[in-house]
Amino acid sequence: MLTIRELQNIVSRNISNIDFDKEPLGLYEPISYTMKTGGKRIRPALCLAGCNIFSDDVTPAYPIASAFEIFHNFTLLHDDIMDNSPIRRNKETVHIKWNSNTAILSGDAMMIKSYELLSDLSPELLKVILPLFNKTALQVCEGQQYDMDFENKDDVSEAEYLNMIKLKTSVLIAASLKAGAVCGGASEYDADLLYEFGLNTGLAFQLKDDLLDVYGNTALFGKKTGNDIITGKKTFLLINALQISDNKTYMILKDTVKSNEIRNEDKIKIVTQIYDKLQIKELTLNKIKEFHIKALQSLKAVSVDEARKSELYEFVSKLEEREK
Amino acid sequence: MLTIRELQNIVSRNISNIDFDKEPLGLYEPISYTMKTGGKRIRPALCLAGCNIFSDDVTPAYPIASAFEIFHNFTLLHDDIMDNSPIRRNKETVHIKWNSNTAILSGDAMMIKSYELLSDLSPELLKVILPLFNKTALQVCEGQQYDMDFENKDDVSEAEYLNMIKLKTSVLIAASLKAGAVCGGASEYDADLLYEFGLNTGLAFQLKDDLLDVYGNTALFGKKTGNDIITGKKTFLLINALQISDNKTYMILKDTVKSNEIRNEDKIKIVTQIYDKLQIKELTLNKIKEFHIKALQSLKAVSVDEARKSELYEFVSKLEEREK
Repeated sequence: MLTIRELQNIVSRNISNIDFDKEPLGLYEPISYTMKTGGKRIRPALCLAGCNIFSDDVTPAYPIASAFEIFHNFTLLHDDIMDNSPIRRNKETVHIKWNSNTAILSGDAMMIKSYELLSDLSPELLKVILPLFNKTALQVCEGQQYDMDFENKDDVSEAEYLNMIKLKTSVLIAASLKAGAVCGGASEYDADLLYEFGLNTGLAFQLKDDLLDVYGNTALFGKKTGNDIITGKKTFLLINALQISDNKTYMILKDTVKSNEIRNEDKIKIVTQIYDKLQIKELTLNKIKEFHIKALQSLKAVSVDEARKSELYEFVSKLEEREK
Repeated sequence: MLTIRELQNIVSRNISNIDFDKEPLGLYEPISYTMKTGGKRIRPALCLAGCNIFSDDVTPAYPIASAFEIFHNFTLLHDDIMDNSPIRRNKETVHIKWNSNTAILSGDAMMIKSYELLSDLSPELLKVILPLFNKTALQVCEGQQYDMDFENKDDVSEAEYLNMIKLKTSVLIAASLKAGAVCGGASEYDADLLYEFGLNTGLAFQLKDDLLDVYGNTALFGKKTGNDIITGKKTFLLINALQISDNKTYMILKDTVKSNEIRNEDKIKIVTQIYDKLQIKELTLNKIKEFHIKALQSLKAVSVDEARKSELYEFVSKLEEREK
C-alpha cells in the first residue's frame, strides 16, 4: 500500500513527464505554466488510492489520474476568467499573465489533453470510465453555472447550495475515486461506494472551506479570513444565517454584505457577531460531521480488508482536523 | 446510396433529437440556440457519406457525425469570443446575446457533449475513433492559435498559412470523412485516403473563400466583398501578392491594408488593382485546382466501385463551381 503522499509524488512525476513543450507556443506555454504550478494533486492521488485499495498495481490508473488533474486545471483556467481572479496558487492566473483569449484556448486544449490520456485506457476500462468522465465533466460545468447564477439570486436555499458545491467540487473527487477503483478491478458496487465516499468527503471539504474563511486562523490559513463576507458570497454560513435569523437580523445581514459604504473590517465584525449569536459555526461543524460520517460509512462498507483502507481513513481524519 | 442533401437532413434530425432543454438553463439554452441555428451540417453529412461509400447502413456513424457537428459549433462559440464577432448565421453570437462567460462555459459543455456522443460507439470503433477525434480537436485549437498569432506577425509565408488553414479547417473535415469510413468498415488504407480527400477538399474550400471575398459576386456571396482587405487579414491572396510584388508595390500593399486613413472603398480598389496586376486570382485558382486534383486522386484510389463515390465527386464539383 502506498501513502497518499507517495501517490501525490507519483502523480506529479507522471504529469511532469507529459510533453507540453510544443508549437504553437502561444497555446502550449500557458498549459505548461499551469501544470507546473502544482497544486496538491488531490484528485489524481485519490484516484490512485481508489485503485490501490483493490490492487497493489496502481499503474493501470495512471492515465485516468492524470486526466482528472488536467481536467481540473482546465476548469480553473476558465473559472478564473469568469470570476476575474488575478491570482491562483500565488501566481498570476493565465488570463492575467497572457490574456482571456489565451486562457480560453489553452483551457480548451487542456480538456482535449485529458481525453487524450483517457484513450490510453484498455477498451474494457474505457467503456466504463469514458461515460463516467463525460457525466462528471458536464456536472462540473453545471455547478459553475449554478455558482454564477447564485450571485444574482436572492434566495438560495441550503439544498440548492449543497447541490451546487456537489456539482462544482464533489463529483470530480468522487469520480476520481470511482475511476481508480474500476482500474483496480473493484466491483461496480464497491466502486459506487467509493464514489459516495468521495462525494461526502468533497462536501465536507467545501463546507470546511466556507467555515475557515470566517473562523480560520489567519496565519495558518494562508489568506486573510473574511473574504467571503466582504464579497457577499452566498456560503453555507450566510445562507443558514439568513434562514434562521429574525426579521431584524435578516435585514442587517443583507444590508451589511451588500453595502458599499461599510468598511471591510466592520463588515467582517458585524457578520461574524451575528454568526456567533446564531451559532452558525456549530451548525456548520455539525453538517461537516454528518458528511464525514456518511463518507466513513461508505468506506467501511467496501468489501476489502480494513487495513487496505487505512490511507483513506487517515486522509479523511486529516481533512477533518485541518485548520487551513 | 443517399445524397449529401439526404444525409444533411438525417444529421439535422439526429441533432434536433438531442435533448438540450435541461437545467441550469443558463448553461443549456445557449447550446440549444446554437444547435438550432443550423448551418450547412457539412462535416456530419460528409461523415455519413464517408460511411455510405463502404456500407449501405450509415446508422453506426450517427453518434460520431453528431459529435463532429457539436464540436465544430463549440469552436465557433469560442472563436467568436476571441475574434469579437457579433453575428453568425445572421443571428447574434452567444457572447453578444448572453455574455462571454456564458459563451465560454456553454462552449465547454458542448465539447463534453461531443465526447458523450462518442461514448455511444462500440468499443472496437471507439478504439480507433477516440484518438482520431482527440488529435483532430487539438489540431483545431492549434490552428486557431496560429490564426491569432498571424495577426501580429509580419511575414507569414504561404506554407505557414496553408498549415494554419489545414489545422483550423481541413483536419475536421478530413477526420469526419475518415471516422465515417471507419464506421462503414473501411480498411485503414481506404479510410486514410478519405482523410486525404477531406484535407485537400478543405484546403481548396478555404482558398475559395479567400478568393470569393475579393472576387465574389456580392449579390450571390451574401456578404460584401473586400472584408478581408479592409481588416488587413493575411489571406492566401495577400500573402502571395506581398511575396511576388516588387519593392514599391510591396510598400503600397503594406501601407494600404494597415492604413487608418484610406477609406474602405479605396482600400479595396487599390489592393484589388494590385491583385489584378499580379494575377493573384489566377494564381489562387491554380492552387485550388491543385488541391482539387489531389483530392480526386485520393478518392479515385479508394477501393470501392466508382458508382459508390458519385456523391463525393458531385460534392467536390459543386464546391469547385461555387460562386458564394
